[in-house]
Amino acid sequence: MTVRTPDPNPGWLSDHDLDETRKRVPMLYVEAVPVRMDPDGLVTEIGLLLRGSTETGAITRSLVSGRVMHGERVRDALMRHLEKDLGPTAFPVLPVSTVPFAVTEYFPWPGVSQFSDVRQHAVALAYVVPVSGECEPRQDALELSWLSPEEAASDAVAGEMEGGRGALLRQALGHLGLLTG
Amino acid sequence: MTVRTPDPNPGWLSDHDLDETRKRVPMLYVEAVPVRMDPDGLVTEIGLLLRGSTETGAITRSLVSGRVMHGERVRDALMRHLEKDLGPTAFPVLPVSTVPFAVTEYFPWPGVSQFSDVRQHAVALAYVVPVSGECEPRQDALELSWLSPEEAASDAVAGEMEGGRGALLRQALGHLGLLTG
Amino acid sequence: MTVRTPDPNPGWLSDHDLDETRKRVPMLYVEAVPVRMDPDGLVTEIGLLLRGSTETGAITRSLVSGRVMHGERVRDALMRHLEKDLGPTAFPVLPVSTVPFAVTEYFPWPGVSQFSDVRQHAVALAYVVPVSGECEPRQDALELSWLSPEEAASDAVAGEMEGGRGALLRQALGHLGLLTG
Amino acid sequence: MTVRTPDPNPGWLSDHDLDETRKRVPMLYVEAVPVRMDPDGLVTEIGLLLRGSTETGAITRSLVSGRVMHGERVRDALMRHLEKDLGPTAFPVLPVSTVPFAVTEYFPWPGVSQFSDVRQHAVALAYVVPVSGECEPRQDALELSWLSPEEAASDAVAGEMEGGRGALLRQALGHLGLLTG
Repeated sequence: MTVRTPDPNPGWLSDHDLDETRKRVPMLYVEAVPVRMDPDGLVTEIGLLLRGSTETGAITRSLVSGRVMHGERVRDALMRHLEKDLGPTAFPVLPVSTVPFAVTEYFPWPGVSQFSDVRQHAVALAYVVPVSGECEPRQDALELSWLSPEEAASDAVAGEMEGGRGALLRQALGHLGLLTG
Repeated sequence: MTVRTPDPNPGWLSDHDLDETRKRVPMLYVEAVPVRMDPDGLVTEIGLLLRGSTETGAITRSLVSGRVMHGERVRDALMRHLEKDLGPTAFPVLPVSTVPFAVTEYFPWPGVSQFSDVRQHAVALAYVVPVSGECEPRQDALELSWLSPEEAASDAVAGEMEGGRGALLRQALGHLGLLTG
Repeated sequence: MTVRTPDPNPGWLSDHDLDETRKRVPMLYVEAVPVRMDPDGLVTEIGLLLRGSTETGAITRSLVSGRVMHGERVRDALMRHLEKDLGPTAFPVLPVSTVPFAVTEYFPWPGVSQFSDVRQHAVALAYVVPVSGECEPRQDALELSWLSPEEAASDAVAGEMEGGRGALLRQALGHLGLLTG
Repeated sequence: MTVRTPDPNPGWLSDHDLDETRKRVPMLYVEAVPVRMDPDGLVTEIGLLLRGSTETGAITRSLVSGRVMHGERVRDALMRHLEKDLGPTAFPVLPVSTVPFAVTEYFPWPGVSQFSDVRQHAVALAYVVPVSGECEPRQDALELSWLSPEEAASDAVAGEMEGGRGALLRQALGHLGLLTG
């Protein structure tokens, strides 16, 4: 163990500590599906992030997603990642309850779950979050695109979602009553 | 059967038809617990309606509540009753999903459920609804009062809730993570 | 109004009274998706009823479904329809909570919802119900067939589901974590 | 870093590694409220574990609870801890969905949440689990006692629950429709 100055960002880990921790325990994540609602409270659009993969150069779609830090409340982690991925003027409406619509389990190896994450075993609490303002993704994400529920449910979009999140997106659409038969 | 002109308010029933229907089938209701949230998304206040009973003169507390009409969507019924009970400037945020946090069953006779309604067998879908504007109850309700979660969970308040809704209120507080041990 | 002897089946309505009531208020239903689980608690099979339509002669698939009667608890209605549709030896495990995974709204006219019922406006509380015994449908249903989650999610099966219930079935699969991306 | 032989129990951590990890990230837990149901599907009894504190000698009540290991599915962790705490003949019925009725956040310091755990920041997914067999707690737990819903909701019991879990127990009772007003 080395002598260290106090951590200026408590909760954040060095690359080494993060790597080590990822091999030891499941990492807790929050994920959010941003949506727009009409005045009657019906969801009309689904927001998906377009990310550029540094490995393959391919463009993939993703949801708002990020780690819950040590000492951080789930609700605060959700707000932090919404602001990071959608910008400061998105005006998200956080869910009143921390009970998620889905618990998603990502594994670094195949065969355990349909969701995968090469970096780690992660368990994510997923929420649907209405936003009423303007979204300007800041970091990682290249762009936010708004899709109709039909487009979001399509096989084309599902195929572009990273880590198998097409299934999570469809689960969100089901929860919203927007899946078709 | 009498010859009638077309109903100007489809879905509404005459007193006779309503009485008759109430003896035949369970009546579908929506109920809402209005709440105020702080900027971090934490619920800080619970809104309860004060109603004066025409029968006993006593003041009782209640939630936003009302019938789903024939042909009306659950979401629209919820919005209609929120506007009726909280006024046009309450700016309620409807839940993204119609899955309720509770299904409450009211019976006109004792012993079946802890919830009672002398008029009818009613089944209510209950939702928590954040409001951001000013609430001015219009009809039936005398006043809307905002309580802290602790006050709302108290035995005193539970004893004033009509039809056993103190239990529903506590269930809402539990769903919000605001019940204490 | 006619003089009648006391109803031997309280809660049941004459055809006339039922028709009249259906025009006045939404009818409350329960629906169940029967499933089989493996020893680890993972859902492996979805049970769908095959019904013969008396109107078209076509075979359609359906879920366990039926009306909540006047004076009947939601839980008791669910058990009654499970026994009616799956037989007395199905041994269903009722959900511990009456909070449904979906609220489905059926309308007799198009354009309001993706779910339809030519007879009425109905609102259904939907549950997933594991069964451990042998299923022998008694009335209405011709047969119960067990499908894999993949088969149940297919467009072919969705197209055979009556009233748009393919969407409800997919919502159930999403709730179970069995939708694919 | 030391050279080690392969871990015979992958997922388990040495005391040192566990201590280190607990300072870095929130630890993911599952918790279960064991219940007994009557033939109609109504919950009649709540199972609470009596544990003896090694520190104070006091007896405290608790729920089935334990960590999700690296590489372990939430469902498997739930089953493992149910078997550990209730014995091999409890015959628990796992929930069909991994969506919990509550997400509980335990912090090692006061003021963030009403739930506390001196060892760590932990986030628990909580489920209600009916058991139909005989329960014989094996490790840690001294005894399992069955309480009526009224007893379980009492202040006396809440005061004996460790880490503030009285609030979680009441949330479970609310979810089951068993809280009184």
